[in-house]
Amino acid sequence: MELQIEIVCVGNELLIGKTLNTNAQYLARQSTLLGASVKRITVVGDEIDEIAQVIREILKRKPHFIITTGGLGPTFDDRTLEGIGKALKRKLKIHGEALNMIQKKYRGIQEGKTEKIELTPARMKMATLPEDSKPLPNPVGTAPGVMINIGRTIFAALPGVPPEMEAIFMQSLKPLFEKGTGHVKFFERSVYVEHIMESSLAPIIDSVMADNPTIYIKSHVYTQSHPPFSEGKTQIELHFSTKAKSEQEAQAVLKRAVGELTQLIEKNKGRLADNRF
Amino acid sequence: MELQIEIVCVGNELLIGKTLNTNAQYLARQSTLLGASVKRITVVGDEIDEIAQVIREILKRKPHFIITTGGLGPTFDDRTLEGIGKALKRKLKIHGEALNMIQKKYRGIQEGKTEKIELTPARMKMATLPEDSKPLPNPVGTAPGVMINIGRTIFAALPGVPPEMEAIFMQSLKPLFEKGTGHVKFFERSVYVEHIMESSLAPIIDSVMADNPTIYIKSHVYTQSHPPFSEGKTQIELHFSTKAKSEQEAQAVLKRAVGELTQLIEKNKGRLADNRF
Repeated sequence: MELQIEIVCVGNELLIGKTLNTNAQYLARQSTLLGASVKRITVVGDEIDEIAQVIREILKRKPHFIITTGGLGPTFDDRTLEGIGKALKRKLKIHGEALNMIQKKYRGIQEGKTEKIELTPARMKMATLPEDSKPLPNPVGTAPGVMINIGRTIFAALPGVPPEMEAIFMQSLKPLFEKGTGHVKFFERSVYVEHIMESSLAPIIDSVMADNPTIYIKSHVYTQSHPPFSEGKTQIELHFSTKAKSEQEAQAVLKRAVGELTQLIEKNKGRLADNRF
Repeated sequence: MELQIEIVCVGNELLIGKTLNTNAQYLARQSTLLGASVKRITVVGDEIDEIAQVIREILKRKPHFIITTGGLGPTFDDRTLEGIGKALKRKLKIHGEALNMIQKKYRGIQEGKTEKIELTPARMKMATLPEDSKPLPNPVGTAPGVMINIGRTIFAALPGVPPEMEAIFMQSLKPLFEKGTGHVKFFERSVYVEHIMESSLAPIIDSVMADNPTIYIKSHVYTQSHPPFSEGKTQIELHFSTKAKSEQEAQAVLKRAVGELTQLIEKNKGRLADNRF
């Protein structure tokens, strides 16, 4: 079964290009390696209506998992849970277990001090979750993650601070993904070629993929920084990927496909060099 | 007037987390600096139906510009133009001007050689555009960009290879953005604080923003790589931004807001350090 995932990254800092979206890459990479298929990544700003709109659209597509990242903290612009509440028509309420998690964290900070950290409105906010949510423990930060079941879709809201997001993903989501894919994993291999144009390689890629239906090949062109036009001199990566239950099985099909492509390039060397392919 | 932009990045390599989406950051950053507002960034795979679906959804939101990146090259999985054609119900046809651009490029490669580079199907593909498109010159690569007017929305499809995408953006889109925003630009300033919790700063940020309506402040938490819980010890960036026609005007409002925040932190130092704010 294909385990379908959608990722939503919430944050104005992404829309103004201040922050490079490494969270999306982390979640996409980990999900892929665990055998899941990421179908779409959406980036929206810190606005309740925008977040709610995106969530409603995704729910119509019924993926198995929706993972959001960002917008769970204590400041006014942390609005992901309000957006989710609006999309699902669920009220936000203080969640006893979440409040407990947060109180423990603040007690942790205060160790050795006599003052008590007050549960200010900003702090209570992090325990205010949509109805019927389950808080996910945050081993490295304050704001807990949030999990909600909606029909066949599991909804997981993670914080935007990368180590917190990663820790909650590994602890709470990885086991569910492994179960969901039936332990199918993702395998890949790359071959690099030079002095051949991508347009010349296109028919060779087509032919190898037709011969190896479980293999996906994608070409990536790398050019030196802003050179004058010189397509013939760029480096091209041919990225082979497949999914399989066993590494052995995956490596065998990858090896076969890579071998076939290498042979075809070798055989057509003269024509490829002349760009007559 | 707010110039609204949506960005679409096409490519399986983004969905499998192989590639970090620096193109999205580049386009978001440049658009923002030019005074435009990026409303959403969407990442989809190399599938015609997926691409068409995303485009249809965005057209309903009527942004001023839709910029896509990726999927214009010669290989079978370069499908952005087919997706656009499907969404707009426009047939794809060989475009004389685009074909001319591509032929010139290949003649460029062959300089000094007597062989002629054949216009293979893979190469013709890059000149096969939706009806009523305008090709945008690609100063550093082969595949031209593509521009289409759809009602009030201007559609621009750029290649995925970063230097090609950047060169076409600068040459063909930047002037349109400058005109569209009436030369309003984006300005920003950051203040860094330590030993204060984000939850303690939240009410101070609220108060400064209420006092300075043209200023947006967002806090960003930076933690050392995966430490044990220590929110009190993380560094927090307070990012101030505004839009204005003149740099002088922008710097004056930024200075005022930064000054106000710094004073409030100073005034509440004792309580902030004790986490009693």
